[in-house]
Amino acid sequence: MNSYTVGDYLLERLNETGIDHLFGVPGDYNLQFLDSVIAHPRLAWVGCANELNAAYAADGYARCRGAAALLTTFGVGELSAINGVAGSYAEYLPVVHIVGAPSQTSQHNAELLHHTLGDGDFRHFLRMHQEISVASSVLTADNAAAEIDRLLRCALTEHRPVYLLLATNVAASPISPPSSPLDLRISRHERQLAAFANAAEQLLAEARSVAMLVDFLADRTGQQERLASWLREVPMPFATLLMGKSVVPESLYGFAGTYAGASSAQSTREVIEQSEVIITIGVKFTDTVTAGFTQQIDSGKTIDVGLNECRVREHCFHDIPMAAALEVLHRLARRHGSGWRQHIVAPPVMEEDRSVSLTQGSFWQAMQAFLRPGDIVLADQGTAAFGIAALRLPENTRLMVQTLWGSIGYTLPAAFGAGTAEPGRRVILIIGDGSAQLTVQELGTMLRDGQHPIIFLLNNDGYTVERAIHGAEQRYNDIARWNWTHLTEALSLDNPAESWRVTQTVQLEDVMQLAADSSRLSLVEVVLPRADIPPLLAAVTRSLHERNSR
Amino acid sequence: MNSYTVGDYLLERLNETGIDHLFGVPGDYNLQFLDSVIAHPRLAWVGCANELNAAYAADGYARCRGAAALLTTFGVGELSAINGVAGSYAEYLPVVHIVGAPSQTSQHNAELLHHTLGDGDFRHFLRMHQEISVASSVLTADNAAAEIDRLLRCALTEHRPVYLLLATNVAASPISPPSSPLDLRISRHERQLAAFANAAEQLLAEARSVAMLVDFLADRTGQQERLASWLREVPMPFATLLMGKSVVPESLYGFAGTYAGASSAQSTREVIEQSEVIITIGVKFTDTVTAGFTQQIDSGKTIDVGLNECRVREHCFHDIPMAAALEVLHRLARRHGSGWRQHIVAPPVMEEDRSVSLTQGSFWQAMQAFLRPGDIVLADQGTAAFGIAALRLPENTRLMVQTLWGSIGYTLPAAFGAGTAEPGRRVILIIGDGSAQLTVQELGTMLRDGQHPIIFLLNNDGYTVERAIHGAEQRYNDIARWNWTHLTEALSLDNPAESWRVTQTVQLEDVMQLAADSSRLSLVEVVLPRADIPPLLAAVTRSLHERNSR
Repeated sequence: MNSYTVGDYLLERLNETGIDHLFGVPGDYNLQFLDSVIAHPRLAWVGCANELNAAYAADGYARCRGAAALLTTFGVGELSAINGVAGSYAEYLPVVHIVGAPSQTSQHNAELLHHTLGDGDFRHFLRMHQEISVASSVLTADNAAAEIDRLLRCALTEHRPVYLLLATNVAASPISPPSSPLDLRISRHERQLAAFANAAEQLLAEARSVAMLVDFLADRTGQQERLASWLREVPMPFATLLMGKSVVPESLYGFAGTYAGASSAQSTREVIEQSEVIITIGVKFTDTVTAGFTQQIDSGKTIDVGLNECRVREHCFHDIPMAAALEVLHRLARRHGSGWRQHIVAPPVMEEDRSVSLTQGSFWQAMQAFLRPGDIVLADQGTAAFGIAALRLPENTRLMVQTLWGSIGYTLPAAFGAGTAEPGRRVILIIGDGSAQLTVQELGTMLRDGQHPIIFLLNNDGYTVERAIHGAEQRYNDIARWNWTHLTEALSLDNPAESWRVTQTVQLEDVMQLAADSSRLSLVEVVLPRADIPPLLAAVTRSLHERNSR
Repeated sequence: MNSYTVGDYLLERLNETGIDHLFGVPGDYNLQFLDSVIAHPRLAWVGCANELNAAYAADGYARCRGAAALLTTFGVGELSAINGVAGSYAEYLPVVHIVGAPSQTSQHNAELLHHTLGDGDFRHFLRMHQEISVASSVLTADNAAAEIDRLLRCALTEHRPVYLLLATNVAASPISPPSSPLDLRISRHERQLAAFANAAEQLLAEARSVAMLVDFLADRTGQQERLASWLREVPMPFATLLMGKSVVPESLYGFAGTYAGASSAQSTREVIEQSEVIITIGVKFTDTVTAGFTQQIDSGKTIDVGLNECRVREHCFHDIPMAAALEVLHRLARRHGSGWRQHIVAPPVMEEDRSVSLTQGSFWQAMQAFLRPGDIVLADQGTAAFGIAALRLPENTRLMVQTLWGSIGYTLPAAFGAGTAEPGRRVILIIGDGSAQLTVQELGTMLRDGQHPIIFLLNNDGYTVERAIHGAEQRYNDIARWNWTHLTEALSLDNPAESWRVTQTVQLEDVMQLAADSSRLSLVEVVLPRADIPPLLAAVTRSLHERNSR
């Protein structure tokens, strides 16, 4: 009796959207559904050590593949994952969260089951997830096909998580397979688009200097190629915010650096803030990427392209998908760009650091030399994310940071997710010691699956970013001291890894070479002074400290 | 300028309720408050590796001390902890969850801050926590004294978590110290109590056999001594459910075993189900402790004592605190007990297992011999919790299981919390390999603080309890294979630990002796057959499997 079930339907639709892997942790309310997963010919199960890490891994996968799926069990599993899913919501990643639930009969009878609060109410966790999902549904045998399609459409067009509650018996219920492909068209308002084009052209035709500022929402809608070909055709000064770094190739002529408001390099700031017209694409000005809202972007000279709406000066235009708006602007740039090809500046270069002992300066200098085209680089919130802002990334690098949600420890499981999504690319993880302790068990999962990322563990003896904000010498910023180089040996019986501890710049350079040549997972413990922080982080933390005291 | 602040007031009130430690993880929205914590003379900061583990540690501390406090940061921190707090809610532990939030000014201005969803709404996470808290509050300088008192009163009288949102500037606001002690009196209805006493006496005076069934809520209200002295004075058959195991000394004459419905030992079942009157105290009949609701407890012969209400047969009596009800019943037992001293049965003994290679049978047999009075024993959900049900615990043992919420991995950080709460007692942790992977980093925190629990890591190569429910050979029940005996060395630079791997029964007995004599943290990897499960778990998992298919 292997009839086609609701579980099969869900997996088929997920796979149709480009999802080949399902991350999660088994639990007794999702085991039957997992049988369908195992039986599926094109979708693989990827068990993680815990649910938070599985959610982070799914988020990392979605950043590479455009979408991801996560499976947890009722109550304990879904709540363990919820911080990870909230991060996907904040940062616009479509993660489909499937939660295995007790059977409809048990729910109807309000049974006092394990993994419940013991009060017969089976909707507590659904309500909690509604705060961090664009859509949610309690699936039944009758509504499953329509609801699965509706939720996947929401996730993929709004680029945010959705939540499906899948009772054990519903997962096993018979259903017909889908009869047509999932409809993922986004409505667009042609008259609004034409009006937007007119308004934008008025500004662009007269401008003598135009700059572009790109952020992470351009990544989420997949505009990388559009932007690269535009900037190749019509060179113009451009910058990204930290969250959008790597969306546009930094090797292109016109790259002016990473914009961070008043904490930007002087040349970056001038070329962005002083251009006559600025085109902002997928931008959110949040506190940490603007050093505390110090950006100076006059809305009276801005053309802003959002996910589904645009703005020219103060005038808003609705129902315009980002892709359509960029197509218009690209055309206008071709038409008028010859008139505004000024103000190209060289991107800032890092100050040379010749320290013998490792410092943030010498570490990032070595990292700049180490990166190569095609790398996937993850930099955890803290010195890593703010340090990498100063680098010029090689062609086709993908940088993953989580600067808005800012959940420390995120990047370690996200690196596992990225490695699962793109097994052919080199994955480089840069993470602090405090952060790595939160999610360290996923190193074992990387090793289980034979992944071989290169991990730079910045050991600066505690929560350095917190020290910079407040309490530099307080013991609440201390952490348990670990033997980092012994860790990979403990976390795998089967796949050996390589570990090094480096304290000198020259050692780091040597070890980088060894790690680059190795086919094993490499963990490099980089010993850094505990109060040393990248310059951008110093400015950001000053602003955060002030803001907390108001 | 060290004026008395809202933060100081909160800490003083917490300390007044017997809380000497605050568990958590620092974050930039709670750092200033942490300065007050560090400065407090009688309340210590206990940093954990991540927030879920901190919540579990607080839960474990509350089981020993009666209450606990947890500090996280906004968004990322509080949501990482939420599964742990939900467990405290389900299982009635008063955990005071304090969340450091952005300043009131930032909230009022709806700023796009890190650790938010980027939408200017600062109440998402408050609403999520309201599902798993008995009370919550957004503190201000004006309401802080009243609200802190109200919330602590709720937590301690209802035995469940409360949630306080503490903005950075509110924590630092001046306030007057408390002028009188916290009022924790529970209202009681004297006429209802008298009516309850009458109704109970009618039943008890005529009964020829009376049995007692105790569960975890008797632990939460601290009735251990009352029950022990009652049973010493008036011997009568009694049993506990698994969640209430160790609330009553199992060394007492009258102990009939652990009751689990149809899966109980025959003698346990008979003496409980066939007594003429049964007194149930703090009982919740949930699925896993009753092998799927197979209990046969006739409400027509039951006197039931709940947290704040009682029942005699079908008649309910409200506003009677458990302590007052037990005082009444104890007096009635003294008066009438000589008439019903029958049916005492010997508790079931485990079948002798003389296996050379370790089995669940020989492991639990060795554990029975190893336990000694005063131990704190934590058994994780899975083979550990269901295996220990068959043991007869020595005097003054405290068993900690989380059978209703059932979040695997819980006991490892909870053991850290218990060790913090009761540094003079021996802590024994029994946990499976799959479970330990979820929360393993807290081993490092135990080592940092010089704790030396004895840890039995049951390595049965994956999620054995899930295999028993469904998919015995499916690879979703496999986990990453770790080198368990290398782990403690990796997780501490400063405090060495001892690790052993045992495969034979005689080795285990030898190693138990070494661990008992050691003053270091001991980790014993106990290698067990992967399909071997305790008999009670076999019955429970059969019932769960059936229920999931309905």
